[in-house]
Amino acid sequence: MSTAVSPLAPNDFPEMPAIAGVKLAAASAGIRYKGRTDLLLAVMDSGTAVAGVFTKSKCPSAPVEWCRAKLGRGEARALVVNSGNANAFTGNTGRQATKLTAEIAAKALRCKPAEVFLASTGVIGEPLDATKFDGVLATLAEQAAPGEWMNAAKAIMTTDTFPKVATATVKLGKAKVTINGVAKGAGMIAPDMATLLAFVFTDAPITAGALQSLLKDGVEDTFNAVTIDGDTSTSDTLLAFATGAAAANGAPKISRAGDPRLKAFTRSLRDVLADLAEQVARDGEGARKLVEIIVEGAVSKSSARKIAMSVANSPLVKTAIGGEDANWGRVVMAVGKAGEPANRDKLSIWFNGIRVAKSGARDPCYDEAEVSNAMKNPKIQIKIALGLGKGRDRVLTCDLTKEYVAINGDYRS
Amino acid sequence: MSTAVSPLAPNDFPEMPAIAGVKLAAASAGIRYKGRTDLLLAVMDSGTAVAGVFTKSKCPSAPVEWCRAKLGRGEARALVVNSGNANAFTGNTGRQATKLTAEIAAKALRCKPAEVFLASTGVIGEPLDATKFDGVLATLAEQAAPGEWMNAAKAIMTTDTFPKVATATVKLGKAKVTINGVAKGAGMIAPDMATLLAFVFTDAPITAGALQSLLKDGVEDTFNAVTIDGDTSTSDTLLAFATGAAAANGAPKISRAGDPRLKAFTRSLRDVLADLAEQVARDGEGARKLVEIIVEGAVSKSSARKIAMSVANSPLVKTAIGGEDANWGRVVMAVGKAGEPANRDKLSIWFNGIRVAKSGARDPCYDEAEVSNAMKNPKIQIKIALGLGKGRDRVLTCDLTKEYVAINGDYRS
Repeated sequence: MSTAVSPLAPNDFPEMPAIAGVKLAAASAGIRYKGRTDLLLAVMDSGTAVAGVFTKSKCPSAPVEWCRAKLGRGEARALVVNSGNANAFTGNTGRQATKLTAEIAAKALRCKPAEVFLASTGVIGEPLDATKFDGVLATLAEQAAPGEWMNAAKAIMTTDTFPKVATATVKLGKAKVTINGVAKGAGMIAPDMATLLAFVFTDAPITAGALQSLLKDGVEDTFNAVTIDGDTSTSDTLLAFATGAAAANGAPKISRAGDPRLKAFTRSLRDVLADLAEQVARDGEGARKLVEIIVEGAVSKSSARKIAMSVANSPLVKTAIGGEDANWGRVVMAVGKAGEPANRDKLSIWFNGIRVAKSGARDPCYDEAEVSNAMKNPKIQIKIALGLGKGRDRVLTCDLTKEYVAINGDYRS
Repeated sequence: MSTAVSPLAPNDFPEMPAIAGVKLAAASAGIRYKGRTDLLLAVMDSGTAVAGVFTKSKCPSAPVEWCRAKLGRGEARALVVNSGNANAFTGNTGRQATKLTAEIAAKALRCKPAEVFLASTGVIGEPLDATKFDGVLATLAEQAAPGEWMNAAKAIMTTDTFPKVATATVKLGKAKVTINGVAKGAGMIAPDMATLLAFVFTDAPITAGALQSLLKDGVEDTFNAVTIDGDTSTSDTLLAFATGAAAANGAPKISRAGDPRLKAFTRSLRDVLADLAEQVARDGEGARKLVEIIVEGAVSKSSARKIAMSVANSPLVKTAIGGEDANWGRVVMAVGKAGEPANRDKLSIWFNGIRVAKSGARDPCYDEAEVSNAMKNPKIQIKIALGLGKGRDRVLTCDLTKEYVAINGDYRS
């Protein structure tokens, strides 16, 4: 398996400011990987509100079930994330592992186990030995510090080739509030609620109910509009934590997602989610091209989404892009198989702004050399105009390369 | 692109008997390939009944539209198939090309253009120059002979590595009738009605209406239960021709699919379709493993089909099998994402008869060495028991290898 960083990785990482009320620490618990961290503890001040969205898989992981059950309380004091083992399809052993992990963290932090949120990522079906967290979580609780964002992002990586962080600072009332996010992605990415794992923290004083609404709306065009391989994980988890610490600086307390004072915050939250989601696409397993699919002229937005996803998940479209081939015939195929309204004779297609097909046939001005040259770009935009209505949507994905096959042909062994 | 024959190819090909009333010939028309045949003409006696099922793509090819329009007549005198160019997404030029091809064939055979059925396979979006068929179809009409089945199967290949033929002989009344089939597959295979191209011929005297019913029923558990990459072609075409010549030997004329005298014929037709469909899976692009997915205990057959297809189309399951890794965690993932009723804690999974997961967790008797050894087999059966109901289904697919990516990263160029 290659350990080279994705050529689509961002050139630099943002400075991640501290979030009042949040401290982080990472360690090596020896779950699976050697010579790297695999355990993250985030400690939040009391009074922190929590919201979350999760995989729609019918076979969710034990930590997903744990979080769902605890979310109703709306309060969080800690987040524990391990990489290397997903604690999924582990039966009763898996449930016991989540309980034990939460109890160990709760003891270290003197909080309730139900205030500890959990996520696990890695191999499915292997029992997770939570006794490995005993001791190390207590140490992490002592070490936790406000500036450890990059280390947090690194500890949750699996086949990711770079850590994923994003930040935004925005006014809430007259006070400045901050939103920080970390995520991991790579493979088994076709989120139906959130990506594999993403965590967002803010010092804004927002109730759990309002935060839940913001998060649900926020994922729709960000994490839910990304696909690497069409395979939806058992572990998809996006959690958001609002410590409320900015209230001390005069930030108003918000209890409704529709509160007009939240406008700038809502936009910034969406920006952070979109930034992380794009980074997930940029780090798709084996990715060499970032691919943006834009569908317009569909009968509705949801129809445009289905068509965009059909194109984004087509192995033939993805391998063609990997081969720098503007094979718009395969785009037509993927539009045709989506099952959504489409009229072949009204269809037009662009690759990176160059129209290659118009009204159901090759563009009369088609120039193979010009298009081939455009395909060398590391970012490929495929725009599809259906000519039926006003529905529009956008999905991000990446190409399908031999490297994806290599990574996934020997991941478990 | 590799030209090696699939390691899953059959060891030998059946002797293909003649079908009274059918003559075949193949030639090189220079559509795209060099040094091989790319044009097939099948000539049928007058009175031949025809039936067909086609892609459900919203962007079907011009030949698919031609066949659909002519099928209502129920009579066929000729079939013209070219490989190398799909004549799909070619606008009005494409429609003119189908018309011209039919006219050229009709002139050579002194029949009506509407009695000529057409199929094209190959690149999408390139105009097909039908004037290339002028002359060569007249020559083929003269050369056509009853024994040319292997040459017919070779002429319609694209990225197929071996020709696909199947035959069955069965009693109809007291007479012996024969069913011969040829097919091509390889990539863009997720038939929703038929595979890329398949043609079945019989001398049985069956009306077009009855033949249509038989064909529609026959594809359900054969071609429709095969997937290579989840990409549905614009050109999927399965045509069946019944010359009726066996009536001269005393075969009864059949006008209803439900006629009890058809029982053995119906079973044999299904066998021929199933044989061709399995050959398509054995020749999936880059395939090294034939994969059979069996789902049982689902709430219904259609639910079992959806779950089996979700597993069969999962890139992570397919790459794991390519890597000889019994990664049943990914099978759980694919069951979970199918959106069909499933209860994680009732799920059991077998690889080649070895139970690896039971009641939602790893089988207590799991033996990695035993399972790893079983994964070396060129045929892999994954059985999934859901424990919910009596719904059962079976789907065939193949593994996903670097060769698939290589073939499809440079197919057009």
